[in-house]
Amino acid sequence: MIIFLIAILIVTGAALSPVHAQSWQLPTDAQRCPSKWGAADERGSGNHMKPETVLRAVRLIRTGEVFELGRVLRPDMPFSPGRKYFMEMKRTTMNAGRNRRGSNEEIVYTELGQVGAQFDGFAHQTIGDSLYNCNNPAEISTRTGFTKLGVQNVGTLMTRGVLIDVAALRGVEMLPDTYPITVDDLQRALQRQKVTLQPGDAVIINTGWGRLWDTDGARYLKTNPGLTTAAAEWIAKQDPMLIGADNGPVGVTPDPDPQLSNPVHQIALVVNGIHLLENLKLEELAGKQVYEFALILQPLKIQGGTGSTVAPVAVR
Amino acid sequence: MIIFLIAILIVTGAALSPVHAQSWQLPTDAQRCPSKWGAADERGSGNHMKPETVLRAVRLIRTGEVFELGRVLRPDMPFSPGRKYFMEMKRTTMNAGRNRRGSNEEIVYTELGQVGAQFDGFAHQTIGDSLYNCNNPAEISTRTGFTKLGVQNVGTLMTRGVLIDVAALRGVEMLPDTYPITVDDLQRALQRQKVTLQPGDAVIINTGWGRLWDTDGARYLKTNPGLTTAAAEWIAKQDPMLIGADNGPVGVTPDPDPQLSNPVHQIALVVNGIHLLENLKLEELAGKQVYEFALILQPLKIQGGTGSTVAPVAVR
Amino acid sequence: MIIFLIAILIVTGAALSPVHAQSWQLPTDAQRCPSKWGAADERGSGNHMKPETVLRAVRLIRTGEVFELGRVLRPDMPFSPGRKYFMEMKRTTMNAGRNRRGSNEEIVYTELGQVGAQFDGFAHQTIGDSLYNCNNPAEISTRTGFTKLGVQNVGTLMTRGVLIDVAALRGVEMLPDTYPITVDDLQRALQRQKVTLQPGDAVIINTGWGRLWDTDGARYLKTNPGLTTAAAEWIAKQDPMLIGADNGPVGVTPDPDPQLSNPVHQIALVVNGIHLLENLKLEELAGKQVYEFALILQPLKIQGGTGSTVAPVAVR
Amino acid sequence: MIIFLIAILIVTGAALSPVHAQSWQLPTDAQRCPSKWGAADERGSGNHMKPETVLRAVRLIRTGEVFELGRVLRPDMPFSPGRKYFMEMKRTTMNAGRNRRGSNEEIVYTELGQVGAQFDGFAHQTIGDSLYNCNNPAEISTRTGFTKLGVQNVGTLMTRGVLIDVAALRGVEMLPDTYPITVDDLQRALQRQKVTLQPGDAVIINTGWGRLWDTDGARYLKTNPGLTTAAAEWIAKQDPMLIGADNGPVGVTPDPDPQLSNPVHQIALVVNGIHLLENLKLEELAGKQVYEFALILQPLKIQGGTGSTVAPVAVR
Repeated sequence: MIIFLIAILIVTGAALSPVHAQSWQLPTDAQRCPSKWGAADERGSGNHMKPETVLRAVRLIRTGEVFELGRVLRPDMPFSPGRKYFMEMKRTTMNAGRNRRGSNEEIVYTELGQVGAQFDGFAHQTIGDSLYNCNNPAEISTRTGFTKLGVQNVGTLMTRGVLIDVAALRGVEMLPDTYPITVDDLQRALQRQKVTLQPGDAVIINTGWGRLWDTDGARYLKTNPGLTTAAAEWIAKQDPMLIGADNGPVGVTPDPDPQLSNPVHQIALVVNGIHLLENLKLEELAGKQVYEFALILQPLKIQGGTGSTVAPVAVR
Repeated sequence: MIIFLIAILIVTGAALSPVHAQSWQLPTDAQRCPSKWGAADERGSGNHMKPETVLRAVRLIRTGEVFELGRVLRPDMPFSPGRKYFMEMKRTTMNAGRNRRGSNEEIVYTELGQVGAQFDGFAHQTIGDSLYNCNNPAEISTRTGFTKLGVQNVGTLMTRGVLIDVAALRGVEMLPDTYPITVDDLQRALQRQKVTLQPGDAVIINTGWGRLWDTDGARYLKTNPGLTTAAAEWIAKQDPMLIGADNGPVGVTPDPDPQLSNPVHQIALVVNGIHLLENLKLEELAGKQVYEFALILQPLKIQGGTGSTVAPVAVR
Repeated sequence: MIIFLIAILIVTGAALSPVHAQSWQLPTDAQRCPSKWGAADERGSGNHMKPETVLRAVRLIRTGEVFELGRVLRPDMPFSPGRKYFMEMKRTTMNAGRNRRGSNEEIVYTELGQVGAQFDGFAHQTIGDSLYNCNNPAEISTRTGFTKLGVQNVGTLMTRGVLIDVAALRGVEMLPDTYPITVDDLQRALQRQKVTLQPGDAVIINTGWGRLWDTDGARYLKTNPGLTTAAAEWIAKQDPMLIGADNGPVGVTPDPDPQLSNPVHQIALVVNGIHLLENLKLEELAGKQVYEFALILQPLKIQGGTGSTVAPVAVR
Repeated sequence: MIIFLIAILIVTGAALSPVHAQSWQLPTDAQRCPSKWGAADERGSGNHMKPETVLRAVRLIRTGEVFELGRVLRPDMPFSPGRKYFMEMKRTTMNAGRNRRGSNEEIVYTELGQVGAQFDGFAHQTIGDSLYNCNNPAEISTRTGFTKLGVQNVGTLMTRGVLIDVAALRGVEMLPDTYPITVDDLQRALQRQKVTLQPGDAVIINTGWGRLWDTDGARYLKTNPGLTTAAAEWIAKQDPMLIGADNGPVGVTPDPDPQLSNPVHQIALVVNGIHLLENLKLEELAGKQVYEFALILQPLKIQGGTGSTVAPVAVR
């Protein structure tokens, strides 16, 4: 009898505190290293980029319609704390010569790897003092860049893109401020859209939150709907080339577990070596119900960089 | 008889002083404005970017092989005078939370529109105090960018790319220091390669000069083989989407006419509204004799910017 | 009779519209050039800096008490539109060697000549396309500085400083938002303080507005009490080394004449070649009624610069 | 007898290998902490700055002659590795208004605390992971500055300055490339100059090396004459306000002990909390044999900064 009562208490407790029951735990080093791509691997999910991947993407281009998913770089766009973007147009130089050639150029000061629509590389995040594939920052970080894992290694990514429109699944243009996207949400959305994921895909989540980028930057940054740790882990199991979203952190912010700070970033970048793509503009893609497309992005080759601002497109 | 002798002298004079005979003359405003794309046009050759253009490019992708044509961004790469690139990796921030998430990011200071492999927009060059389509800098320039002609308007360009390998035509890996590429060179190279140009193409010139980028930056910058004004004007008549090269100025430097300063830049950007793509890495493409391919590039959406560093690819 | 009535109307009209009656008029080039310091002069009021000036200042130092008049440089201080200040602390470098020497340094990005407590040089302002002493910007401006009038020529300034406490004269800690300081205000304040001006003085105006620097930056910038054009011209006639204030523009903002934009800046810098010193912290000096003191400031030698942030002191 | 011979060998060995005999040893934490200024002290030798110090300096001002000891800030000046200085003059803004007021300003990008003639604060150097007064960088360092020991706390320093002209002592204008200045050198130079040190002095060493700043920056940086550790420790015992020199590291570079990296920096900043002043221009001061003077410097109030570029003067 007592055992029975205890059992009931345990079950009730679990039911009442879902967080504690499913608390995400940091994997141990042994659990995540070496990477499935090899002990010396620096490329992570970028290893999916092969000629076949390009062809797979190309096959999805039927009309040549291009959707710009990137952001205009301007000083007043939303920034994660501490970041900025400034551009100063230099004075015009009139060159010598009878052709009266005037030249204009600008100087830019910004966290070039982490502003606008941004692509994260593997030097960006750590678990304690450990990076992707258990690289040690103390050994590979310098004042002018990381000697391994730098974003200059990525190159153009061109692959099949799949939009998982969770907002549409929930019948809204924009999910609520801290809506936690579950595995169930993802699976039902894919079902509804009649699309399945394949290894090497660019998995793009539409939350609708990107609509705030131009209209309410403060709200855009304060919290956001996004993936739960479980949802992120489920996507990771689908072996994608990258996970993208129309928000900054990709993961729901704040995470339901108040003791966790953006764990989805760690799940993707540190644990699984999967690239992230953030702050996308998805209204058009979602509005036209474009669920399958060629995704193309070109991270700048910032030597030793943690990531790159990008201007990606979806093409169909 | 005297008239006959005078005629001979004139012909001989013309033959002996080709520069004076064919000196490039700045077109008048009336000759170049309004642009063929319309009096209010800001996009110039970017107007070629249509769904059909994408399909035309896609049809050339057979194997999915990708050639990276861009450059690693590093502080010690070659720069036109006055330009620079610096990246400082910030201190790691350990975020609060039990998941011990560390964050890394870098601050970059550079002429983001004009370093590395770079794409020129139409705010970059003037003839006197006039820009493409006779836009007036005094009316559209501000400290923080141009209010018209900004590179943020360009978007991804994806089109048929044609490599014109002038170095191979001349039987060398690298053309001489100030080799002036003529119309005849271009035509014979195309003939040799059995390729013809089509409107909307990305016309990419291989001089071989790009080999110096990593090995002898001083020489790379000092002079370069490149297009003569006549060759540039001939390409312009082919109505391309852009003209690219594995050098900085695209035009031969110095121009054979010592009174001209980089007139090819004006012919392309100011007179014809044709984009330029510079400092490309073409060794692999030329080495494998890839003359026809899909060219993809994604200029950053630098609001009001004169251009953008890019990481373009050729795909076949 | 009619003429008499017309005369009365004219006089009345002038009396009723003081702005129109005393509207400040831009001097002609002939009226201000060449400078009284000579046609080739670049130093303006800095020419007052002589050994005698230093001794004159030193004689005022009796107790050695130092008043810091400068501002802490921080990213969130008040800025004139378009200006900024950022400092990023680099990663620590551990140098090789058994002495385990670690090094820290920061990178700063700012309008170094025009932030914080700032000292204006003569390249900073123009009347149309003319600078101090009728220098032509087109001839002396470059992308990397002015070839004449640069602030690197100034050097340390050490002179007798006189505080004119207009706020105290008016019986307040802080003058109202757009209080226009008149010649009468200045003269009565000096009388009240029993101090007279001498050539070569640093004339420092206390408006009390500086109290808002740390507490209400938005209000600090929006408007400010300050000198009228007449008051500025009167001070200029006293032949000072510089005019300083605890506000940004020195002149009242907005000027009572809505068609004028900060004319006091032009009166000082362009017309008379008198340096300006802005955004000072004067609470302590005014609170202790220190009206005469040695003023010491050290503009950085920014080659070709328009000014310099400074950390000046008053010593008595 | 054997003991006698052994003694001789020991003495000879010591004489022949001064390095090994007198190798500088890092002090333990207990030996240097807490600082003599107190366990919570952040100001170190800046604590010498009192009214009496100012008066002591003022008493040395007899003629008002000013010697500029600072450097023009320009992009091509000598830099320690990794440092830079860039200034871009913005486009002129024409303000609205009938007074046609044009404004010029520049944007600067530089290690503002560590370029030109520079003043070092106590956040600049560590012994292992410990700063001055055993402050722990992990506790007080942030991406945007140090929360303790920041240079904004220093304020103007005005004190008696003493030039120790070691070059003149040795009968040269410039000491040899790696000349190690000994305690004996300092004492004999002071004797020759008939000057003695007092607590709170600014002790300025003339090596003559500063002559290379404008003429041979590469040589200036490669090595330099300077203080030995013993000489630095001897000066520290004289309880100065700061130690300055016309070289970058102050200490001889390289140090005679090849296993030490710039130990003089640690002796001054970390062990003793004594400020350093580097890259001074001393030719005039030394040339005119000015051995005693008022030294005035005004470090910028860079919040949380490691130091500040300065434009100091000697006045007599």
